[in-house]
Amino acid sequence: MPLKRQNEDSILRKISDSFRSSPWDPRQSVALAIGDDSALFRPKPGYESILTCDWFLEGTHFLREKYPPDVVGWKCLARALSDVAAMGGTPRCFLLSLALPETHTGRWLDLFLGGLGRASRKFRCALAGGDTTRQNKILINVTVVGEVPAGHAVLRSGARTGDFVYVSGRLGEAELGLRILQRSEGAASNRNSVTRKHLYPEPRLALGQWLVKKGLATAMMDLSDGLSSDLSRLCAASVVGALLESAKIPRIRTPDVARKHGHDPLQLALHGGDDYELLFTVPPRKVKLISKSFRGANLTAIGRITRERELLLLEENGRVTPFKRRGWDPFRNKL
Amino acid sequence: MPLKRQNEDSILRKISDSFRSSPWDPRQSVALAIGDDSALFRPKPGYESILTCDWFLEGTHFLREKYPPDVVGWKCLARALSDVAAMGGTPRCFLLSLALPETHTGRWLDLFLGGLGRASRKFRCALAGGDTTRQNKILINVTVVGEVPAGHAVLRSGARTGDFVYVSGRLGEAELGLRILQRSEGAASNRNSVTRKHLYPEPRLALGQWLVKKGLATAMMDLSDGLSSDLSRLCAASVVGALLESAKIPRIRTPDVARKHGHDPLQLALHGGDDYELLFTVPPRKVKLISKSFRGANLTAIGRITRERELLLLEENGRVTPFKRRGWDPFRNKL
Repeated sequence: MPLKRQNEDSILRKISDSFRSSPWDPRQSVALAIGDDSALFRPKPGYESILTCDWFLEGTHFLREKYPPDVVGWKCLARALSDVAAMGGTPRCFLLSLALPETHTGRWLDLFLGGLGRASRKFRCALAGGDTTRQNKILINVTVVGEVPAGHAVLRSGARTGDFVYVSGRLGEAELGLRILQRSEGAASNRNSVTRKHLYPEPRLALGQWLVKKGLATAMMDLSDGLSSDLSRLCAASVVGALLESAKIPRIRTPDVARKHGHDPLQLALHGGDDYELLFTVPPRKVKLISKSFRGANLTAIGRITRERELLLLEENGRVTPFKRRGWDPFRNKL
Repeated sequence: MPLKRQNEDSILRKISDSFRSSPWDPRQSVALAIGDDSALFRPKPGYESILTCDWFLEGTHFLREKYPPDVVGWKCLARALSDVAAMGGTPRCFLLSLALPETHTGRWLDLFLGGLGRASRKFRCALAGGDTTRQNKILINVTVVGEVPAGHAVLRSGARTGDFVYVSGRLGEAELGLRILQRSEGAASNRNSVTRKHLYPEPRLALGQWLVKKGLATAMMDLSDGLSSDLSRLCAASVVGALLESAKIPRIRTPDVARKHGHDPLQLALHGGDDYELLFTVPPRKVKLISKSFRGANLTAIGRITRERELLLLEENGRVTPFKRRGWDPFRNKL
C-alpha cells in the first residue's frame, strides 16, 4: 500500500523524476517531455518517423502474481521496441500509458519504473510523455517513436521468389519459459535461464539497423506471435509462399528440459510466441554478405521464398507438408 | 454476437478497410499505414512533432450501456486531439489501440469505427496503425501525432504576471450532460442538446492554430479535468497565480436545467470536466487583437495572472476567496 493517497499529478511526478538522470541526453530526441499537454519531438531532417504502439495487459500478456514488477516495466518497452527493430529503425522516444490499481502506486510502481528505466537507457529511448489513470487491473500501452532514413525502412511486403528466409537467434525459448512459468508456484526468478528470454526479451535493434545500412533484407518483421503466424503474414504481404526446412530451424539449446515438460522443441520453434527475433528475407546474390552471427545472435537461413502462395515444411524424414499458422492470437488464445 | 469467429488479422482488416476512403489524401501524412510492424510518418521540414496519448476506458471514462458505440469512437479521438489543439498544433495521424470483448467485434465495432471515422475525417487525422487484443472490458488508447512550426508550440509554462486569462466557449456543459446521463435510463440520445457536448466534444484546433499563427498566447492548455484543476496546473508550470472574476466565467446557457437537477452553474463551470475548451493567457498589449468569438465559440477574459502563487476568486458579492482544485482526478474520482 502507498504511504499516502496518491493523485494523478503526484504519480506523473514520480514517473518523470525516475527518468531525470540518463547517461545520454534525451533532449536530443525530445524538445519537451512530461508536464505539458503533449510532448514535442524534433524529427531529424531526411528521416521518416516510425510509429508503433503495443498493449501489455494483465491477464492477456502477463500475470500479476508471476511477473516481478521490473519485468513488467522492462518487457512492455522491449516488445514495443521490437517493432522498430523490425523496420530497421532507431528508437528515439516513447509515451507510457499506465492504468493502475491504487494499491500499486507505491512500491510496485517504483520497481516497475526501475525495469522500464533500465530498458529505456539500454535501448536509448527517452520517455516523452504519457497518461495515467486508475483501474482494477494493470493496463499498459506503450507508443514508440523511432526513425529511419527516408525510404529505407524494410517492410513485410518486399520478399521475392527465391529469396532466402532468415531468422536471428533461437526460436521457442520464450514460449518454453512461459509454459514453465505457468506451472510454477509464485513469482518468476530472474536467475532461471530458461524463463529469462520470456521475461527480459532484447529487441534486435542493432541487427535491424545493420540490415538497413547494408541494404541486405528485402522484407523483415519481428517474431512476436510465432514463426508460423508471422511468416504467414510476411508471405501474405509479399504475395508469395515459403518452403522451410525443419532441420534448419534453430531451436532451444536444452531439448531435454522441453521434453521433460512435455514440449517438442520443433513445435515450440514453429508456433511459440514472444521470441522478438527478426525474420527477414535476403536475395540469393547477397546471402554471402550475411555472417553466421551478429552480436552474439546466430543468423540462420531456414528456407526459401516460393511463388506458390503456401507455407510448406520439408520434414527431416523427407516429406513436405503444409504448415498451418498456430501461433499466438489474442482473440483465439488465452494466457 | 459476431456472425463468425474473428481473429486478430480479420479485425485489423475491418479497421483498415473502414478508413480506406477519405476526402483528403492521408498519404500526405502517412507513408505506410496498418499492415506492417509499424507505421511510417513523414515529418514536414521545419516542424516539430506533437505526441500525445490518451486512455479511454470503460468504467473510468465511459459507461458501456450509456454510450452509443459511435460516441465511443468519436470521443476517444476528439479528446486526444484536444491535446494537440492545446499546443496550437495541427493533427496529422493517430494510432488506435483497441481491446474488446469477443462479443463486440461485430456490430459494435462497425458502429464504433463509424464514429471514429467521422472524427478522423472532420479533424483530418489519418489512421496510421494500432494494436488490437481481447479483454472483458472495452479498453482504448489513442496516440495522436500532430505538428507545429518548430519553436512555436504554446506551452503551459509561459504565463506572466498581468496576462489576461481567457477561455473559449462555455464551461460546465459537458459535466451537466454527464450528470444527467448518469441518472437517466438506457443509452444516451444524440439529439439531447444538454448531453451533446459531453458525448461529441469538438477540439478547438482552429483556435489553437490561430493563436500560434498570430503569436497571441503566452501559455495554453485544454480544459479536460475542470477549470480549477487545469488552471492550477498552468499556474504551477508558469510559477504564477491567478485571480478570476466569477461573474465573467462563461457558463451553461440553461441554468434552469442545471438547477432542476440540483447543480449550480458556477460550480459546474469551475470544477466540471470534459469541456475540451482552451484556457490561454494573453499579454495586456495584445488583448485588443482577441476577438469576442472565434468560429462560433466565445472568447472570454475571466481574470488575470498574479505574482502571488494562489488561485483566487472574486465573487459576485465582492469577496475574494481562495479556490481549490476540485476537478476530475482518476485516482480520486469515479465515473
